[in-house]
Amino acid sequence: MGKLTFGAGIWAFGQFVDRYAGDGYGPTRSSQQMIEDAARVPGLKHLDINVPFDIPERTATEIKKMLDDNGLICRATTPHIYMREYAKGSFTNPDAKLRSKTKDRVREAISAAKILGATYVKFWPGQDGFDFPLQADYMQIWDYTIDGIRDLANENPDIQFAIEYKCKEPRVHMTLATATKTLLAISEMKVNNVGIVMDFGHSLMAQETPAESLLLIHRHGKLVSAELNDNWRGWDDDLPVASVHLFETIEYMLALRSINWTDPILLDQFPFREIL
Amino acid sequence: MGKLTFGAGIWAFGQFVDRYAGDGYGPTRSSQQMIEDAARVPGLKHLDINVPFDIPERTATEIKKMLDDNGLICRATTPHIYMREYAKGSFTNPDAKLRSKTKDRVREAISAAKILGATYVKFWPGQDGFDFPLQADYMQIWDYTIDGIRDLANENPDIQFAIEYKCKEPRVHMTLATATKTLLAISEMKVNNVGIVMDFGHSLMAQETPAESLLLIHRHGKLVSAELNDNWRGWDDDLPVASVHLFETIEYMLALRSINWTDPILLDQFPFREIL
Amino acid sequence: MGKLTFGAGIWAFGQFVDRYAGDGYGPTRSSQQMIEDAARVPGLKHLDINVPFDIPERTATEIKKMLDDNGLICRATTPHIYMREYAKGSFTNPDAKLRSKTKDRVREAISAAKILGATYVKFWPGQDGFDFPLQADYMQIWDYTIDGIRDLANENPDIQFAIEYKCKEPRVHMTLATATKTLLAISEMKVNNVGIVMDFGHSLMAQETPAESLLLIHRHGKLVSAELNDNWRGWDDDLPVASVHLFETIEYMLALRSINWTDPILLDQFPFREIL
Amino acid sequence: MGKLTFGAGIWAFGQFVDRYAGDGYGPTRSSQQMIEDAARVPGLKHLDINVPFDIPERTATEIKKMLDDNGLICRATTPHIYMREYAKGSFTNPDAKLRSKTKDRVREAISAAKILGATYVKFWPGQDGFDFPLQADYMQIWDYTIDGIRDLANENPDIQFAIEYKCKEPRVHMTLATATKTLLAISEMKVNNVGIVMDFGHSLMAQETPAESLLLIHRHGKLVSAELNDNWRGWDDDLPVASVHLFETIEYMLALRSINWTDPILLDQFPFREIL
Repeated sequence: MGKLTFGAGIWAFGQFVDRYAGDGYGPTRSSQQMIEDAARVPGLKHLDINVPFDIPERTATEIKKMLDDNGLICRATTPHIYMREYAKGSFTNPDAKLRSKTKDRVREAISAAKILGATYVKFWPGQDGFDFPLQADYMQIWDYTIDGIRDLANENPDIQFAIEYKCKEPRVHMTLATATKTLLAISEMKVNNVGIVMDFGHSLMAQETPAESLLLIHRHGKLVSAELNDNWRGWDDDLPVASVHLFETIEYMLALRSINWTDPILLDQFPFREIL
Repeated sequence: MGKLTFGAGIWAFGQFVDRYAGDGYGPTRSSQQMIEDAARVPGLKHLDINVPFDIPERTATEIKKMLDDNGLICRATTPHIYMREYAKGSFTNPDAKLRSKTKDRVREAISAAKILGATYVKFWPGQDGFDFPLQADYMQIWDYTIDGIRDLANENPDIQFAIEYKCKEPRVHMTLATATKTLLAISEMKVNNVGIVMDFGHSLMAQETPAESLLLIHRHGKLVSAELNDNWRGWDDDLPVASVHLFETIEYMLALRSINWTDPILLDQFPFREIL
Repeated sequence: MGKLTFGAGIWAFGQFVDRYAGDGYGPTRSSQQMIEDAARVPGLKHLDINVPFDIPERTATEIKKMLDDNGLICRATTPHIYMREYAKGSFTNPDAKLRSKTKDRVREAISAAKILGATYVKFWPGQDGFDFPLQADYMQIWDYTIDGIRDLANENPDIQFAIEYKCKEPRVHMTLATATKTLLAISEMKVNNVGIVMDFGHSLMAQETPAESLLLIHRHGKLVSAELNDNWRGWDDDLPVASVHLFETIEYMLALRSINWTDPILLDQFPFREIL
Repeated sequence: MGKLTFGAGIWAFGQFVDRYAGDGYGPTRSSQQMIEDAARVPGLKHLDINVPFDIPERTATEIKKMLDDNGLICRATTPHIYMREYAKGSFTNPDAKLRSKTKDRVREAISAAKILGATYVKFWPGQDGFDFPLQADYMQIWDYTIDGIRDLANENPDIQFAIEYKCKEPRVHMTLATATKTLLAISEMKVNNVGIVMDFGHSLMAQETPAESLLLIHRHGKLVSAELNDNWRGWDDDLPVASVHLFETIEYMLALRSINWTDPILLDQFPFREIL
C-alpha cells in the first residue's frame, strides 16, 4: 500500500453552530483563515470546499490562489443544497422552481470544481427525505432524486460526481440513507459518472459494518472517496478518528489497503470543544 | 383492492423456546396439532411450512393430507438451514461439506414444495454473517451467499425462491440484512427466480421505513411475499400487528394497496405469553 | 380530570438554526414577535422563557408587559447555560470561573422569574457530560452537578427549581440523562426545592417508557412540569405531538390524568419546516 | 490493586439454545460436566450456580462435593424465576400463587447458597415487565417488585441479595432496567441486604456508560458483583470480553481499580459458536 495521504472538509476549520449555541462555538471565519489553518495541519493536503464560498463576492479564482499559496489541493467541491432555502428538499423539493434552482447551485459547484482542479463534485442532499410517517410519497421522492442527479450527470459527462449517503440530519429521515440504497439509486440512473463518498461515521449510523460497505461499493466500481471520523452509532457526532470504534477503524483501514486505495482519505470531524 | 387474505408461519402454532426458558413456553406440538390450530383461526388460510417436519419420518404427502383435511393451503416451504448444524453458517459455512449439505437441505424443501403446492421456497440464512469486528472476510461471505443461491436458482428454474432479509438473530450480524442489500445480492446473481420476502418487523429492525422498502422491492420486480408483525425496532420481538407501530402499519397497508397486492399476507408473530 | 391547559417554550416561535443551515430556518425574531405569535395559538397560555432575552438591553419588566398585553403567563424561566461560553460545561465546567459564572447566569433567571411570576426556574445543563470514552472523571462531574445545583437551591429556598433531563445533544453524552438518574442526583442534594421537568421526547430518547417515568417521578414527589413532543427514539427531533408515537402519547396522557395533573402541559416542538 | 480473580456463570459451560436452534448449540450437559469444564479454564475459580440444578433429584450437597473435588468456589446462587412457569412474571406475576411460588423458589436458592457457601443470592427477574404500550400497570408492577424482594430480604437478614438489572430479554421490556432505576427500587425497599450485580453488557444495552454506572452503584454502597462480556449495545449478545468495546472495557477495569475491587469478576459469556 502506498503512503496514506489526508484531507479534510474546509468546514472543519470554520465556525461550528448548533441549534442551541446560536452564538456559535467560536467566531465566524473567512476562507483565508480556514485555508491557512488547514495548511498548518501536518500531513493534510486536500480540501473539500463548499460552494458558494464564505462571502457572496468571493470567486473560485481567489480561492485557487489561496490554496496555491498555502500548498493545498482542492479534492472536491460541495454545493450548499441543504441551507434554509432547501429546508424541504433540494432535488426532491415539492416546488419545481427549487428543484431547478438546486441544479443551478450544482452547476456553480461544477464551475468552481473546474477552476479549483477538484477531482469530483459531491452531492449531499441533507434535506431530502421526510420527518414522520404518512408524510411522504416515497416513490415520488425517489424519482426526483434519480432524475435530478441523472440530468446533471448526463449534462456534464466529463465531471465525476459522488453522493455522500447519510441516514438522517438535518432531515429526520434522509432518502439516500445507506450504501446499498445509494448503489441501487445509482444503478437506476444508468450513468457512469456518479459514485459514492463513503463516510465511516455515516456507515456506523446506518447500522452498517463500514469495512463491508466499503468493499461492496468498491466491488461495484463506485468508490470515489473515503472519509474518516467516529460517532456512537446513533448520531453523526463527527468525533476524532478511532476515539470510540478502534477495531472498526482498523478493519476499515485494512479494507482500504486490500483494494490498494491511494487517494486521499478525508477527515470529516467537527471538533466543537477541542478548538476552544 | 381485492379482499385481503392471510396466512402464517406454522411455527406460530408450535412450541416457543428461548435461551432462558429451555423448558419452552408451552409443550412440544406435532404437525397435526399445529395445522389443526391454524385451521381454527378465522380468515387464516395459508401456511409457510418448515422442512424437515416435526418428526424425521413425516412425509410431505402426510402433511398435504393434513392441510387438505383442514382446508389450508401451503404458501411456502422454508428449509431449516439455521439449526445446530449450521451454527457457523449455511451457504457461507467455512466447511465446504456443510455448504453442500445446505443445498441438499434446500432440495428437500423444493421436493416438499412441489408435493405441497407451495408458491415459493424461502431462504432465511439466519446463521450467515459474523459476530464481532475483524472476524469475517466479508467478500468471501458475500460470494458464498451469491453462489449458493444462484446455483440452486439455476438448478431449479421452475421454482420461485425468495430471501427473507433480517439484520440480526440468531447470528449477531446477518449478511442479507436490508432490503436494498438483498436487492443488490439478487442483481449479482443474474437469475430471474429469486425474489424477496418482506417482513415488516425485519424492516423496522433494519432502520428502514417499511412502506418505502416494500415499494422499492416492488419497483424492482422482486416482491414475492409480505409478512406482518411488530417490534420495538431493536429486536425481532414478533409482537401482534400494530401493537407498537400503528402509523407505520397503516402506511404499509396503503403501500400494499397502491401496488394492488392480492396475495396472502403472512403473520409472523411469536405469541410467547398470549398462549398460556 | 380538569380541563387541560397548554404552554410552550418561547423558542418554538423563534428562529431555528442547525449546524448546516447556518443561515437559519427563517429570519431572526424579537421577543415581541415571538410573544405575539405565541398569543395567536388557540389554547396556548403559558411560556417558558429563556434568560437573557433577545437583546442584551431587554429587561424582564419589558417582557412582563409584553406578556400581559398578549394575555400570556410566564410558566418558567430557563437560563442560557449551554451557549458558546459553556461549551465545556456549566455546573461541571473544568474552569472554576465558568462554574461560578453559571450560578450568576442562573441568578439572573431567578430575578427574571420573580418579575415575570414564573412558577419555576429550569436547569437544562446541555453541555455537561462527555464526548468519548476515557475522557471524563465521572464522579467529579457528578459532584460538580450536585454541588452547583444544591448551592443554588439552598441560596434560594423560596424558588422552585426543576431539572430537565436529556441523554444527549448538544453534549455527546449528558450526565443528567434519565429520570431515575436525575432522581438519584436530587436525592443526593438533600434539598426540597429541586424537581424535574419531564419531557416526553427526552424520555423516549433515554429508552424509557414515558408514562412509567412520569409515574416514578410523581411517586417521589418531584414532578414539576410535563412537556410534550415526539421523536424517533434516537434523537431529540422535537416533532409534533403524536406524529410518531400515538400509543405512548395516549398512555402518557392517561398517566397524567391518573395523578390528577392540572398544571399546564408545555409543547417543546421545533417546527423547522412547518413554518416555511 | 490486588491480583484479579475470575469466575463465570455455570451456564457458560452448558447447552445453549435459542428460539430457532431448538436442537441446541451442542448436546445437553450435566452439572458434573459443566463443573469439570469450568475447572479446566486457567484462572477461573468461582461459579454462579442456577437453582434448581441439572436434574430434579440433584442436591446442593452433591454440587458442593463436585465443586470441592474440582477446586472451585460457589460465588452465588441464582434461582430459576424466569422459566416457562414464570413467563408472565415472577415477583410481578398477575397470579398471586405464582408470586408466592417465586419466593419459594428463591428460598430454595437461599438454602443451596448456605450449603454451597455462596456470597450472595442473585435476582434476575427476566420475565418481569411488559411487551407493548397500554398493556401494563407500571406502578402495580413496581410495587410487586419492591414488596417481593423486600419480604425476602427481611425474612433472611443474614443473606446478601443482589439484583442483576437488564432492560430487555426475555421480557420485551424489563422493569429493573438500569443501574439508577434499580438503585431507586432498592432505596424504596429500606433494607440493607440488597445490592446490585453490575453486568457490563447489560449496562451497554441500557445506553449507560458502564464505568460511570459502576461508580454510582459503588458510591451508594450497593455494588455486590461485577460481570464482564461484550455486545453491540442493542442486545445481550454475551460476546467475549473486549471483542467490541475495548476502550469502554479498559475504562471499566480502571474504575474497578479505583475502588480497590478485589472480589471475583464474573464472565457472563455465551460462546454459541466457539464451542463447536
